[in-house]
Amino acid sequence: MAAEKNEIKLIGAWNSPFVMRPRIALNLKGVAYEMLQETDGKKSDLLLKSNPVYKKIPVLIHNGKPICESMIIVEYIDETWSSDRASILPSDSYDRAIARFWTAFVDDKIPNTNRKLRTLTKESEETEVEAEKLTAALQSLEEAFQKCSKGKIFFGGDDIGYLDIAFGSHLAWIKAVEKIVEIKFLDKKKIPSLVAWSERFCAHGAVKEVMPEADKLVEFIKARLSASSAK
Amino acid sequence: MAAEKNEIKLIGAWNSPFVMRPRIALNLKGVAYEMLQETDGKKSDLLLKSNPVYKKIPVLIHNGKPICESMIIVEYIDETWSSDRASILPSDSYDRAIARFWTAFVDDKIPNTNRKLRTLTKESEETEVEAEKLTAALQSLEEAFQKCSKGKIFFGGDDIGYLDIAFGSHLAWIKAVEKIVEIKFLDKKKIPSLVAWSERFCAHGAVKEVMPEADKLVEFIKARLSASSAK
Repeated sequence: MAAEKNEIKLIGAWNSPFVMRPRIALNLKGVAYEMLQETDGKKSDLLLKSNPVYKKIPVLIHNGKPICESMIIVEYIDETWSSDRASILPSDSYDRAIARFWTAFVDDKIPNTNRKLRTLTKESEETEVEAEKLTAALQSLEEAFQKCSKGKIFFGGDDIGYLDIAFGSHLAWIKAVEKIVEIKFLDKKKIPSLVAWSERFCAHGAVKEVMPEADKLVEFIKARLSASSAK
Repeated sequence: MAAEKNEIKLIGAWNSPFVMRPRIALNLKGVAYEMLQETDGKKSDLLLKSNPVYKKIPVLIHNGKPICESMIIVEYIDETWSSDRASILPSDSYDRAIARFWTAFVDDKIPNTNRKLRTLTKESEETEVEAEKLTAALQSLEEAFQKCSKGKIFFGGDDIGYLDIAFGSHLAWIKAVEKIVEIKFLDKKKIPSLVAWSERFCAHGAVKEVMPEADKLVEFIKARLSASSAK
């Protein structure tokens, strides 16, 4: 039974915030896994077979069984290795509902705006509108932090939890976007709790090795944009 | 403690598929609740206060504490009244992940297409494209039914579960849309398992009283469209 539990593969890519989520969760649980890197712009046969509906990363393959959608995978990891470490989801039902609500908020507000902003420049017409959306979302998350953390250092309390993973996985791209459009989003004056939290999150042992550098993301997106404009 | 557990209010509306979800869950658990009907086109102070981020129904208020987002509420209900009745979410972690995946699929594919189709007619230009989207989503759900139900009568097995609630709550609007654009979507020849399942779902004791009639939804949407075109 113990031996059976050991085949854990993750189909992903180094630059995806969504792939970072199960990686952090597996690190938190101290679970070793094999990382299968997808090539940008291609989809492996294993990915197509494992996620035939969306054909998207990440996919966790646990003893041959695929699990898709990043936060569903995180929850699966939390449940499957429940006795190994502290719970990723809050233990109280109401706190769990609140963490799920803000996680849905993050997925609703952050990725699309980030994806648009990273293709723009300081001068682009749409930059102001998109930047305002991101600023407003971060302001809401600053307020959420006060409520969720209850005076502790993470959204999840004393250690990284569900909402920390959901939101924290976007930090590298937010920093990359700051460089691309030359706007400071993680601004200590406006969102002091979030900025302090983001520093703690990025320095966490379960996060450090999987958090890409903002400069590398900027390079990646510039290369991609110039390749697509050359077509 | 038992007395404290009794103040359960649900802010909703009779015609919302999302409101139907917590209602079915509360019925399955045998939990009595007070229904607070919102007026179409207005938002009550209680709603604005209880869901300041999205200002949307449904909101469950349990002993003064608001919980938002329909499937988060269903999960909260399942966890809070866990000992009263059978679990709404599957008991196995992998089955739970699969139910969550298809629930996200339902929310991704069904509501937006339904919302568009209900404002169209048989002759509208966009009808064919939207109808194809809905047909494709239903075909995928037909295949999902085979896998999730494992030969039993509901997605959740012997009784209604998480995915049954997520998808079943859209059935009345799918039937209304069938009348509006004059296309049969719940077609026995194409999706026989889903059609048989939909009949069982609608006849279930926890569902019957909260499932609106398709004709009433058609009346409602016609009245709304003529009111907005008169403006």
